[in-house]
Amino acid sequence: MYDNLGKRLGAEFVGTAFLLATVVGSGIMAEALADGNVAIALLGNTIPTGAILVVLITMLGPISGAHFNPAVTLVFAVKRDISGGDAVAYILAQVLGGLVGVWAAHIMFDLELFQFSQKVRTGPAQWFAEGVATFGLVFTILATLRARENAVAMSVGLYITAAYWFTASTSFANPAVTIARGFSDSFAGIRPQDVLPFVSAQLVAGLIALWFCNWLLVNRQSDASMQQ
Amino acid sequence: MYDNLGKRLGAEFVGTAFLLATVVGSGIMAEALADGNVAIALLGNTIPTGAILVVLITMLGPISGAHFNPAVTLVFAVKRDISGGDAVAYILAQVLGGLVGVWAAHIMFDLELFQFSQKVRTGPAQWFAEGVATFGLVFTILATLRARENAVAMSVGLYITAAYWFTASTSFANPAVTIARGFSDSFAGIRPQDVLPFVSAQLVAGLIALWFCNWLLVNRQSDASMQQ
Amino acid sequence: MYDNLGKRLGAEFVGTAFLLATVVGSGIMAEALADGNVAIALLGNTIPTGAILVVLITMLGPISGAHFNPAVTLVFAVKRDISGGDAVAYILAQVLGGLVGVWAAHIMFDLELFQFSQKVRTGPAQWFAEGVATFGLVFTILATLRARENAVAMSVGLYITAAYWFTASTSFANPAVTIARGFSDSFAGIRPQDVLPFVSAQLVAGLIALWFCNWLLVNRQSDASMQQ
Amino acid sequence: MYDNLGKRLGAEFVGTAFLLATVVGSGIMAEALADGNVAIALLGNTIPTGAILVVLITMLGPISGAHFNPAVTLVFAVKRDISGGDAVAYILAQVLGGLVGVWAAHIMFDLELFQFSQKVRTGPAQWFAEGVATFGLVFTILATLRARENAVAMSVGLYITAAYWFTASTSFANPAVTIARGFSDSFAGIRPQDVLPFVSAQLVAGLIALWFCNWLLVNRQSDASMQQ
Repeated sequence: MYDNLGKRLGAEFVGTAFLLATVVGSGIMAEALADGNVAIALLGNTIPTGAILVVLITMLGPISGAHFNPAVTLVFAVKRDISGGDAVAYILAQVLGGLVGVWAAHIMFDLELFQFSQKVRTGPAQWFAEGVATFGLVFTILATLRARENAVAMSVGLYITAAYWFTASTSFANPAVTIARGFSDSFAGIRPQDVLPFVSAQLVAGLIALWFCNWLLVNRQSDASMQQ
Repeated sequence: MYDNLGKRLGAEFVGTAFLLATVVGSGIMAEALADGNVAIALLGNTIPTGAILVVLITMLGPISGAHFNPAVTLVFAVKRDISGGDAVAYILAQVLGGLVGVWAAHIMFDLELFQFSQKVRTGPAQWFAEGVATFGLVFTILATLRARENAVAMSVGLYITAAYWFTASTSFANPAVTIARGFSDSFAGIRPQDVLPFVSAQLVAGLIALWFCNWLLVNRQSDASMQQ
Repeated sequence: MYDNLGKRLGAEFVGTAFLLATVVGSGIMAEALADGNVAIALLGNTIPTGAILVVLITMLGPISGAHFNPAVTLVFAVKRDISGGDAVAYILAQVLGGLVGVWAAHIMFDLELFQFSQKVRTGPAQWFAEGVATFGLVFTILATLRARENAVAMSVGLYITAAYWFTASTSFANPAVTIARGFSDSFAGIRPQDVLPFVSAQLVAGLIALWFCNWLLVNRQSDASMQQ
Repeated sequence: MYDNLGKRLGAEFVGTAFLLATVVGSGIMAEALADGNVAIALLGNTIPTGAILVVLITMLGPISGAHFNPAVTLVFAVKRDISGGDAVAYILAQVLGGLVGVWAAHIMFDLELFQFSQKVRTGPAQWFAEGVATFGLVFTILATLRARENAVAMSVGLYITAAYWFTASTSFANPAVTIARGFSDSFAGIRPQDVLPFVSAQLVAGLIALWFCNWLLVNRQSDASMQQ
């Protein structure tokens, strides 16, 4: 990872921006073209999202660790792989980048810049789904870092590809993504009032995954964290 | 592989749970959204299943060998790569993990927890298909372990991606998966009374694949088994 | 590659059998489920075919070179990477394996074992398409062998994934595949009387690709052929 | 990279020809089969395009650098990784190759050889989308070259897979591709009068990406450019 915090934040910002431009932009494109078949629209949303994650984590991992996700940053802060101050800066860069990505998608598709989603995503089943999704994501990151570090980009992309379909919430699994998607009244949106429970479930599940990994992964040599 | 049997069983349990949550959860999602087009539903079931297999085998392989499949565990027990006692424990962990994964999918999608499938999957053509599917899976694992060990995760994911489509049974190829899918009355389900013939075909075909591999792969240097 | 010709032929036989079972089986499954939408059926035929090619070439490459294709065997025979006698044996194993694969698909899907296709695939545009498809396949194999040998399996799988869509003939690009598909009156079939022109275009285009590669690739160090 | 300019130009020519044959050919196939569902047609256009890019960059990268794209060649010329004279020759080879690829697709699909597109692709939102698409492509290339050079082929293929969906213009991101698509009145076409603004947006965005990368990527050791 770089010494220079500014460039690390630049990487988190631009990476999260491209992630959200992809999530929201491909959602708009897919829904517009899918002729009402939501499974086809979700395929057109899933494949780009999984693909861009592989790209962004591969290319920005050496700069900032390629978190793009406050839940992941929190886990690394608890693991003391990143300082508390840097973690706060990371999270701000991620949230800002996410918003810029959403707005870039709106400009590209000639939609109103500033929107709020009206899509209802609430209830215990959805929150449990977000918990499973985020547990799985953090577990994937931590276990793959130990098993084969240079497979993390591919594993995260494939994990999210799967989780878009196997979780009832289509796997937000990322507080910055959740907040940003509150600002788009499109396929990928979420009502602003539904954001906080999603984010809470994500953060709690991320910490449970860390606790589980601290048990499961302890047999092995030193931790090769996402940080270097 | 770990020395610690508890953690190995933990890896088999949680890996099989995520595998089944993906198989059953993505089946529920895909069928709900596909507007009656079963090919689209099967795409939405196939892509997540193939993806999660790559992820799970990559990250849990170094811990337990990442079998997640009693037929695979049986083959490695016959090859004496795992002791009989450990094999029995593995199989129990896989079956339990599979059930927990199915139930997690039901909770996420707000369905009744405890169900039995009513989907008929029977007859000689289906059993032959399961035989071909499992022969191919075990052949893939054993031959890829010798050809390029770190390609096993990708190869198994891609093999199952293909086998969902080229076998008439959509390739269960796994007794733990088959049992667990008996407990879900959804896209991926199988009637409980159809489970035993499927499992039998899988176990027999796995052993035939081992016998075939013992002939085909013998020219080569020492066996780098899935176990280390 | 193995010294033992019997095992090399075994690998060519079983590999081509699984390739054809996938091509024909996934075609049957996809057409049956796609509700008349041929693009969806072709997706359900393409993804399995590309996937199984990666699997089979990865796992059987070290045994036989993983040709599964008389046009490829012919090219390697002209390059003197395989003897004429071995080439003839390879081609017989591939054709037999292809037929067995088609028949296995028919059994799995409970269809009549012995069939002839009635699907018309003829005319100069189709033959030119087969030429382009096979030129590209042989070019991909020879250029990837020099550029990055362990990427050949992935490259061939991805090339065929593309060529199913960008060639008007859906890219048979393989005489053994073409002959075998003559024996299946299903999605992937071809009328027996249309087989010979396809095979001719494939063989000619393969040799043109070899001639082109002999010019383009000559700047580089010694040829690391598919054979070892 | 080769010393011999003729072979480097041969690689750029044939690579861009296969790229355009894939873009245009798969567009024709997909639209013909998709029964009016444009999302399915775009899937059938996206998957082949992403796949062939991985193949072509892997196999031709060691020969010419595998640009296939005047915007990329311009960036490397500004970086002084390629001389001005060679860059001009590269661009000519790319444009010619693109045209030949389009015409090959027309022959394969039995269409009139020489066509002009009538598809309107204009307006500030489309131009901004091309800017985002090309910024992202050049950023992907330069950052992946530094992060993990042998991942460039996979990253470019996955980036374009995503960008077909997240940009409103379906991500031409390549002046040679844009010009060539002007000559096909099919799914992938663009009206000739809309070409120049697209190309302008692409070139400007490519240079902005270079400027951004000069800031972001500077912390690291020497630049391992696409050239060797």
